[in-house]
Amino acid sequence: MKKPLAELVGTFSLVLFGCGAATISGISSTGPAGIGLLGISFAFGLAVVVMAYAIGPISGCHINPAITISMLVAGKIKTGDAVSYIIAQFIGATLGVGVLYLIKDGAPGFTLGEWALGSNGWGPGYLGAYNTTAAFITEAVMTFLFLTVIFNTTSRFGNGTMAGLAIGLTLVLIHLVAIPVTGTSVNPARSFGPAIFAGGLAMKQLWLFIVAPIVGGVVAALVHKSVFEN
Amino acid sequence: MKKPLAELVGTFSLVLFGCGAATISGISSTGPAGIGLLGISFAFGLAVVVMAYAIGPISGCHINPAITISMLVAGKIKTGDAVSYIIAQFIGATLGVGVLYLIKDGAPGFTLGEWALGSNGWGPGYLGAYNTTAAFITEAVMTFLFLTVIFNTTSRFGNGTMAGLAIGLTLVLIHLVAIPVTGTSVNPARSFGPAIFAGGLAMKQLWLFIVAPIVGGVVAALVHKSVFEN
Amino acid sequence: MKKPLAELVGTFSLVLFGCGAATISGISSTGPAGIGLLGISFAFGLAVVVMAYAIGPISGCHINPAITISMLVAGKIKTGDAVSYIIAQFIGATLGVGVLYLIKDGAPGFTLGEWALGSNGWGPGYLGAYNTTAAFITEAVMTFLFLTVIFNTTSRFGNGTMAGLAIGLTLVLIHLVAIPVTGTSVNPARSFGPAIFAGGLAMKQLWLFIVAPIVGGVVAALVHKSVFEN
Amino acid sequence: MKKPLAELVGTFSLVLFGCGAATISGISSTGPAGIGLLGISFAFGLAVVVMAYAIGPISGCHINPAITISMLVAGKIKTGDAVSYIIAQFIGATLGVGVLYLIKDGAPGFTLGEWALGSNGWGPGYLGAYNTTAAFITEAVMTFLFLTVIFNTTSRFGNGTMAGLAIGLTLVLIHLVAIPVTGTSVNPARSFGPAIFAGGLAMKQLWLFIVAPIVGGVVAALVHKSVFEN
Repeated sequence: MKKPLAELVGTFSLVLFGCGAATISGISSTGPAGIGLLGISFAFGLAVVVMAYAIGPISGCHINPAITISMLVAGKIKTGDAVSYIIAQFIGATLGVGVLYLIKDGAPGFTLGEWALGSNGWGPGYLGAYNTTAAFITEAVMTFLFLTVIFNTTSRFGNGTMAGLAIGLTLVLIHLVAIPVTGTSVNPARSFGPAIFAGGLAMKQLWLFIVAPIVGGVVAALVHKSVFEN
Repeated sequence: MKKPLAELVGTFSLVLFGCGAATISGISSTGPAGIGLLGISFAFGLAVVVMAYAIGPISGCHINPAITISMLVAGKIKTGDAVSYIIAQFIGATLGVGVLYLIKDGAPGFTLGEWALGSNGWGPGYLGAYNTTAAFITEAVMTFLFLTVIFNTTSRFGNGTMAGLAIGLTLVLIHLVAIPVTGTSVNPARSFGPAIFAGGLAMKQLWLFIVAPIVGGVVAALVHKSVFEN
Repeated sequence: MKKPLAELVGTFSLVLFGCGAATISGISSTGPAGIGLLGISFAFGLAVVVMAYAIGPISGCHINPAITISMLVAGKIKTGDAVSYIIAQFIGATLGVGVLYLIKDGAPGFTLGEWALGSNGWGPGYLGAYNTTAAFITEAVMTFLFLTVIFNTTSRFGNGTMAGLAIGLTLVLIHLVAIPVTGTSVNPARSFGPAIFAGGLAMKQLWLFIVAPIVGGVVAALVHKSVFEN
Repeated sequence: MKKPLAELVGTFSLVLFGCGAATISGISSTGPAGIGLLGISFAFGLAVVVMAYAIGPISGCHINPAITISMLVAGKIKTGDAVSYIIAQFIGATLGVGVLYLIKDGAPGFTLGEWALGSNGWGPGYLGAYNTTAAFITEAVMTFLFLTVIFNTTSRFGNGTMAGLAIGLTLVLIHLVAIPVTGTSVNPARSFGPAIFAGGLAMKQLWLFIVAPIVGGVVAALVHKSVFEN
């Protein structure tokens, strides 16, 4: 139970820190300027850095079903463990958005709008209004690069001390590029949490944030096995 | 005396860097844009990173009564040491705000307003105007996550080289989410320092920044002992 | 084939993360503030940090022909390897901009303008409108400092764990200074990718981003051999 | 000659990266938002991080006369070495500003104004217009904290791998607080370089940026010897 519990706490943290920073601090209200796209990028990425060193020694700190599935394809985790990890990740993400909802509910005039609580999405009305092709390519290619960094830094040639930092900074980079396109998912559980609460378009568009990250991650696993690992 | 002195210097630095960045550089005056919520978040969090490597080898670098009390509950510090740590933390925080007050007093037209010098607070007039429930949940949950990272990264499975970085970056993350809600405390001493100088609402709201962080920290200690430690 | 493939993936990532962040997230559209010059600087520099730990153990992570040529001058790579590295770097950069073009093409109203897709340049119409002398000095001196850090941190006295971080942060610093002058290249492949797609002035000005970085890098190699290495 | 040359290159880099970022990229011109006080803070601090790992193994990377004098007081450097270090630091800083001047001269409409090229200063017309007392306290206290971190992280109990990062991040923190007050010096050579070119008030106010950092640094040396070292 210790490993899935670690995954639950880690995914809870990723979603609460990332979606929380985006929806509570992203835009200026009174006082100092909001954190903007740069701060939101650091929030998601540094959450992975921090969790990699906190729960990495317990569960490996996947906190992302696309990572767990890629690890399964690469033969680095057992099927039973993978299933318990993924369940824990979806529960953790949902609880994280639940706490975020409780906090946001305490702000004057809060209502759940379209794509609320940090939901991923695309198309007219969503940030840069990119189309479905751009959204799919972005999510698949970015997850491919994410997993490529993960497989290489955690291989036996990688630097164990710096791997967690490099992996989390990769998620910073992915957000620095992709927020205007999709809000940046590369993680089905991270997209699931807010969609459950927001409903509407966030729920209708959820499929892309499940399919594209898994496609990108599985391709990275196959490329790593055939090219870089030996 | 070396250990409490280290805690005093560390808490002095945390408060002077964090509250100083917020109140001196947070908002643009003449010239380049102010550091905003992102810069303030880095100021508090990097102060912990830096102090973790400077005084960590001497005292463990708690610089936060909620951490010291959680360590006491987890059986990782003796009661006598804990008391001397906490006294030193409150003195250090007060001295840090004292120096900040001397500097701010040299700026044209400075006066002590409501919630001055980086005071924590909530409700109408305070940044995002969140209510008491949101403030309490935020402070308790964020301190829970803070201590969860601290217990795990400093356990015998943690990476000793990176622990200080991971812990400080967790405080960056906490600020990235929580500044609009409470200004972000998770540290009774950090809230006490400005409140002593600001008085008024900062003093009246101080109780929450003592109670909620201690609740969150103690729960983290109990969860860590029962779930992750063995 | 493993080494040039690593260089290809690395340069692909550098260009997609760096030029992608600049052109997709650089300027605010709807919602939170864009990442600005600070975020663009982090995108290019952290891409090097991340790739240093991911592909560094395979190929050394040059991902920059000016680095490969400097390493050749310093006698740290064989001529055959250098040629395959440089070819892979140009292919990787071109593919990276290709994917970026596919994504940008999905944004409403996108057209290829002068200096599109993160092209380097200078003179009237390009950011700070600096002249050719300023552009050349900037690119040559910055590449000199870049290679000086690279040679020293990867020498036998350097800290192997931190070298990748120090090298990537140097690229952050270079961008923090040089974006208004040239957009910041210090890397012929990084400039080549966008110029192929943008044509026009980006193509006409490409020579400077090949010559100046190589001059700066070769001088750094000679200074390192004669002053610091023994 | 290798050690003072390393100090020269290091101080050259610190000033070119720090003052360059401030004066070339600090304020928005055309295109993405300028780096602001946050970006300027990272430029100075990360320059120290990078140089600590590049030239630290050669000279210890002081690149600051206040550090060299504090090290002399603490008995950690010989007088002859200290003199050659300090001379090299002033030459490096002057050359760094010289290159910056060459670059800035290539921008349309550039003229040397009061406090040009990143000069330190205070009082009416300088950023936050703080008075002399605030300027002196800020520079002395910040240098005290800077040296306290340096002495502790480089002691035999410190973490050698992370010391350079912690020291450079301390300079980030110092800038996050002090730019509106003095522009942030804590380094007589860093203030000397721009003052030589700017003349006027920058030259008249140079004394404070020599005296206050040395006072703060020497007090830190004495406190470290008597309290923390044994």
